[in-house]
Amino acid sequence: MSSTFERTSADELYKGRIFSVWHETFRYADGAEETREIVRHIGAVGIVAHDDEVVWLVRQPREATGLPDLLQIPAGKLDEAGEEPLQTAQRELAEEIGKAADHWQPMHEFFTSPGFSDERFYLFEATGLRDHSLQAESDERIEIVRWPLDRLDEAIAACHDSKSLIGLLSLAQRLGRRGPSGAVVLQ
Amino acid sequence: MSSTFERTSADELYKGRIFSVWHETFRYADGAEETREIVRHIGAVGIVAHDDEVVWLVRQPREATGLPDLLQIPAGKLDEAGEEPLQTAQRELAEEIGKAADHWQPMHEFFTSPGFSDERFYLFEATGLRDHSLQAESDERIEIVRWPLDRLDEAIAACHDSKSLIGLLSLAQRLGRRGPSGAVVLQ
Repeated sequence: MSSTFERTSADELYKGRIFSVWHETFRYADGAEETREIVRHIGAVGIVAHDDEVVWLVRQPREATGLPDLLQIPAGKLDEAGEEPLQTAQRELAEEIGKAADHWQPMHEFFTSPGFSDERFYLFEATGLRDHSLQAESDERIEIVRWPLDRLDEAIAACHDSKSLIGLLSLAQRLGRRGPSGAVVLQ
Repeated sequence: MSSTFERTSADELYKGRIFSVWHETFRYADGAEETREIVRHIGAVGIVAHDDEVVWLVRQPREATGLPDLLQIPAGKLDEAGEEPLQTAQRELAEEIGKAADHWQPMHEFFTSPGFSDERFYLFEATGLRDHSLQAESDERIEIVRWPLDRLDEAIAACHDSKSLIGLLSLAQRLGRRGPSGAVVLQ
């Protein structure tokens, strides 16, 4: 089944500060046309920052959810000025938990909600952590949480957002494979 | 640090078919106020449907992403009429891959993008699969993919959306723990 399509029209219906809304029409290889309602977003990064003992999390209000706060990995939107995702990740790590990292490794790149949004998320693993001056932004109400790696499963159970779950599940997979002493365990 | 807040105003700026956009103001415990731009969405479900040999995936166009198609777990939006997430999951499994399942287990509940959206995702594991008449919706261009479980890591590498990564990483964790013969392996 071919799923090639081309966009035949695009109208901006709403332009906000952090996203815009478009009505777009697509024509498929079989000639059919469909209209889609799309949120266009600049994209964002998340960081799984850890050493051998802890992974660094943050607790902050997420007003959209209606919950008092969410436990998450450090994260933030890409900059308007076309900053590379890795630069954004380095900036956010300093802003949110006051750390720099010697080693950065891409973990996953994914769409948060591809049914209606083009928001693309870049996830990094950061190790070799060292202190960096904390550069918190004024409107971020962030509590820093040092979460013990030997209780990683509890962090996975306590996180309820996509970037944090993907980051921590991937970390568990990497650590599990290395095993307690660095040995590869059965899959 | 307290992160309690209350909503002090809410204005709908855009009302679409599958989401709406709101400007909302929040007052925090310290008296400060912030405005947030929020996408309100009805929520959605995803299903990790597998037996001992394969996990069932689908390949379909996701116009918002600009990519020809995405490899994903079966998924769909909640129904307007207040359907329970489990019912939606059962309906979507029949619609997308023509299967019913004897066993349903909740895996994770998460926000896809809590920085600006209230979209909540309910993820289920479905086992004890049996054939069900395929009830495909007319506008869904879906290719069904039987993915071998012994190549699950390749599916994780090939998926680029949040629900599928969370579902397949969780499945890998569950299978890894049971190990090839059902034995619990070292963590």
